[in-house]
Amino acid sequence: MHQVNSRDRGLNYGDGFFTTVRVCEGKLDRWEGHLQRLKQCASALYFPVLDLNTLSEHCEIAAREINDGVLKVVITRGEGGRGYGLPDEPQLTTLLSSSAYPAHYENWRVKGVSLALSDVRLGHQPLLAGLKTLNRLEQVLIKQNAATKQADDVLVMDLQGEVIESSAANILICKDKRWYTPDLSHCGIQGVFLSSLQMYNPIETASMDLAFVYAADAVYLCNSLMGLVPVRQIDHQQFSLSKAQALASELVVKA
Amino acid sequence: MHQVNSRDRGLNYGDGFFTTVRVCEGKLDRWEGHLQRLKQCASALYFPVLDLNTLSEHCEIAAREINDGVLKVVITRGEGGRGYGLPDEPQLTTLLSSSAYPAHYENWRVKGVSLALSDVRLGHQPLLAGLKTLNRLEQVLIKQNAATKQADDVLVMDLQGEVIESSAANILICKDKRWYTPDLSHCGIQGVFLSSLQMYNPIETASMDLAFVYAADAVYLCNSLMGLVPVRQIDHQQFSLSKAQALASELVVKA
Repeated sequence: MHQVNSRDRGLNYGDGFFTTVRVCEGKLDRWEGHLQRLKQCASALYFPVLDLNTLSEHCEIAAREINDGVLKVVITRGEGGRGYGLPDEPQLTTLLSSSAYPAHYENWRVKGVSLALSDVRLGHQPLLAGLKTLNRLEQVLIKQNAATKQADDVLVMDLQGEVIESSAANILICKDKRWYTPDLSHCGIQGVFLSSLQMYNPIETASMDLAFVYAADAVYLCNSLMGLVPVRQIDHQQFSLSKAQALASELVVKA
Repeated sequence: MHQVNSRDRGLNYGDGFFTTVRVCEGKLDRWEGHLQRLKQCASALYFPVLDLNTLSEHCEIAAREINDGVLKVVITRGEGGRGYGLPDEPQLTTLLSSSAYPAHYENWRVKGVSLALSDVRLGHQPLLAGLKTLNRLEQVLIKQNAATKQADDVLVMDLQGEVIESSAANILICKDKRWYTPDLSHCGIQGVFLSSLQMYNPIETASMDLAFVYAADAVYLCNSLMGLVPVRQIDHQQFSLSKAQALASELVVKA
């Protein structure tokens, strides 16, 4: 059980970022992608350059201990600085923790999920968009709201009504044999699983409203832990599970 | 030196809120206002009702030890919950810490401050607007940007170009003997000092662009620690310090 100093900027300002990694047979899944995103977060938040070799070593040791489950990596700017002001020479805090693999994800992949529409909408902040920072109060409010709905998860729009993500996963859409994912340049988190799909498949980034999503042939959620999950239903709109499965089989999915 | 469990939601999601209280002669300054805002934050974030009596007792003891300085109160949702999801029965974490009173504020009150325009702009999130939550990465980026400017502090606008606040204080404006403060219903933090001014003075809440601010007779920063600070200059626009001081003397300022 790790302890963190209460003056840590991660606690006081959410001044940091994180990633959650699937661990299978003692190995880190899509580790290069996670490293890439950690690097990106560090750069966007003016952190010093991360020591990725040492981090990788520690995470590989943790993965062997976990064997099967989830490794979470949290990196904060540590202590110091006056108020919000950045310390001159930050001593980063790195926290590794493990948890069990969410058991329901296997079921989600096979049977698909139902989504309700979230009443909570995401605000725009281009400087933080795409990043998995420790400022996640919008997601906490989204989960609070989702718990009042009769569905597996929620579809989340931004304040302008564009579809962005689910409570904790990216959205992928297939329509007329073309693949689309929402534009995350104003809000949302760019997932490592999505980035990996984008590397091997032609996926168009597009602003999309609800009508566009409803008119899709298939809709999916995806993230590093759940993988690719077909959506059976959004609000009252049904989607064919078998069609979603057939279309998904055409995607190149690499570990 | 307090320690916090690394699984605390305050660290992982910024799932909490805080306030910083001026302590003078062993007493908490504007404590009722701070309690009011803590209550408001708890309610907006679906926290359980706070035990304000116990909190007040602990803070009063801390204030006597501090005597002269600053008391910071951080309240988080504690541990638990699956991912972003709220725990069923949260056990809140409460952290009290002290720091010295920022020495330069006395000088600021007497001599005024110069402001540069921040390149970082605030995003809108009505559900969190006004609240002093632990999601403060925008302020961290604002301070990072401010450090590159030749000025005491920065004036911060939102993405739409409306003037909102400084890096850590509210804005007050006097024009034609009327008082104004920016509308904080989409972003920004409602300060306890500002709330106290609003209680005893007729201050209009208004959307305001930079032209409106430049045309003011006097501009001020204010928060619980600095009190009321006249602005001498914003970018290349000068303001009369003596006029600001004369106008401020007409305000009712109660402790």
